[in-house]
Amino acid sequence: MSDKFDLKAYLEERRGLVNRALQAYMPQVRGPAFRLNRAMHYSLFAGGKRLRPILCLAAAEAVGGDPGEALPVACALEMIHTYSLIHDDLPAMDDDDCRRGIPTNHKVFGEDIAILAGDALLTEAFSLMSRRELMEGIPPDRILAVISEVAVAAGCLGMIGGQVADVRSEATAVDAETLYFIHTRKTGAMILASVRVGALLSGAGQENLDALSTYGRNIGLAFQIVDDILNVEGDRLITGKSTGSDVSRGKVTFPSVFGLEESRRRAGELVEQSLSAISGFDESASALRMLARHIMERRS
Amino acid sequence: MSDKFDLKAYLEERRGLVNRALQAYMPQVRGPAFRLNRAMHYSLFAGGKRLRPILCLAAAEAVGGDPGEALPVACALEMIHTYSLIHDDLPAMDDDDCRRGIPTNHKVFGEDIAILAGDALLTEAFSLMSRRELMEGIPPDRILAVISEVAVAAGCLGMIGGQVADVRSEATAVDAETLYFIHTRKTGAMILASVRVGALLSGAGQENLDALSTYGRNIGLAFQIVDDILNVEGDRLITGKSTGSDVSRGKVTFPSVFGLEESRRRAGELVEQSLSAISGFDESASALRMLARHIMERRS
Repeated sequence: MSDKFDLKAYLEERRGLVNRALQAYMPQVRGPAFRLNRAMHYSLFAGGKRLRPILCLAAAEAVGGDPGEALPVACALEMIHTYSLIHDDLPAMDDDDCRRGIPTNHKVFGEDIAILAGDALLTEAFSLMSRRELMEGIPPDRILAVISEVAVAAGCLGMIGGQVADVRSEATAVDAETLYFIHTRKTGAMILASVRVGALLSGAGQENLDALSTYGRNIGLAFQIVDDILNVEGDRLITGKSTGSDVSRGKVTFPSVFGLEESRRRAGELVEQSLSAISGFDESASALRMLARHIMERRS
Repeated sequence: MSDKFDLKAYLEERRGLVNRALQAYMPQVRGPAFRLNRAMHYSLFAGGKRLRPILCLAAAEAVGGDPGEALPVACALEMIHTYSLIHDDLPAMDDDDCRRGIPTNHKVFGEDIAILAGDALLTEAFSLMSRRELMEGIPPDRILAVISEVAVAAGCLGMIGGQVADVRSEATAVDAETLYFIHTRKTGAMILASVRVGALLSGAGQENLDALSTYGRNIGLAFQIVDDILNVEGDRLITGKSTGSDVSRGKVTFPSVFGLEESRRRAGELVEQSLSAISGFDESASALRMLARHIMERRS
């Protein structure tokens, strides 16, 4: 059985686990606000890769934790990711009609409902993480630390800060420092947080947490560089987005600043550094290792 | 010294307290995302009444708590309120150019930044409530319960659900049941939560919490009815909004369903019920009593 086959089965099993949990955790909105329910579910179950929740569960496993205990937080990470995609796609932002091969949220439900569905998914993420009865075995102080970590990563010093810098950089010449500012925040912050909170929830010690933080920081940046590369050369049928859309929009990307070849080299280097950061872990970190390699090989 | 004078001084003192705390708690975004910092501060310090934080502090006092300990949560409530106003004003929603007498956020910073500033304020609210070092004296389990309460009130079953129902009801005939659905959620849920979390943080017992919940539910609905009335007959210079904007937009309001006189009567009745719910409290609830009466008398 090859490594590749193992990963495919693993990813499928984990996606199923996350999808079932998301279905169970999502509140059902009825009555005059039922359209909100449809809009939230539409984007949440639009075929996402579930990378962030899978990383969170894998990090919990790597430090000897029970991935089942981390499921609510893992699902909250995916809700936040989904809200960010809905808002990014809006006409006032990237103005995308299509995501993962299907119409974007505002194309189906209208801009007003799309804005509110994003707001609601962000809010429900925090509602889910504070549902004490779902994480009875975990000390409340630890859950508070996790909520804080996720909020900082998703907030104005993290993901939203990166998104603002990205929007502001369109059609202006951007240096490597600004590119780094954007990428480490826009995608990197939440990927790093996904790894860290999985470990935090399981009571990881400082040494393991430091190693996993280096791992998460490196794969976060590698993930965004590969995203940039796929945007230039990817197959529209696989990525579900128009190839070259970043270029036509004047977006700052790794290939636009460093060129394709150097971007590929840099991503490979980051993945190697992520693997070396967790070299001291035993086979409990196998999933994290496979996920890091998978980031370089992904086509969408 | 008349009651009225006391209230004015009290409100001013509390507004100052909340404003100073908000300034201290707000993260400072620098570098390429600095515009986000300006956009968040612009709306947060645009002269809001700070009703929700003041209610939260007053409820803490009513059950013998230290309002200082409730300040972070009180400020988080105001951040959530501010985010909801920024998003409500967007062209895809109410399309308002003016709020509190000054241009709305998207008019100054653009739609993209306004959406992100709203997202960021919502996220920072949860970041603030999970900052353990600001609430060292409060048991972590209690803080988790407060975060949960705020998230549910602000989420798809609360404020956002109400907003969706409101947007969906425009230009259609709406019955009293739908009107009630909208008003109890859109404004009522967060006003109720403001009162409840102030009490919860201070370790209120179930009996006090029940009484304060009745108080909060009634003033929440009264507040929205008065808002509707002011929209019909208010002075544009005082409310900062165009009078009659709800009518021209086909919005469902209390006056449009019940008429002005019946709306006024109903608001007065709700305020009486809120006062009677807390009649068992001593003078520690004086502020809550004055605030309830103030809701009927307000001009903006």
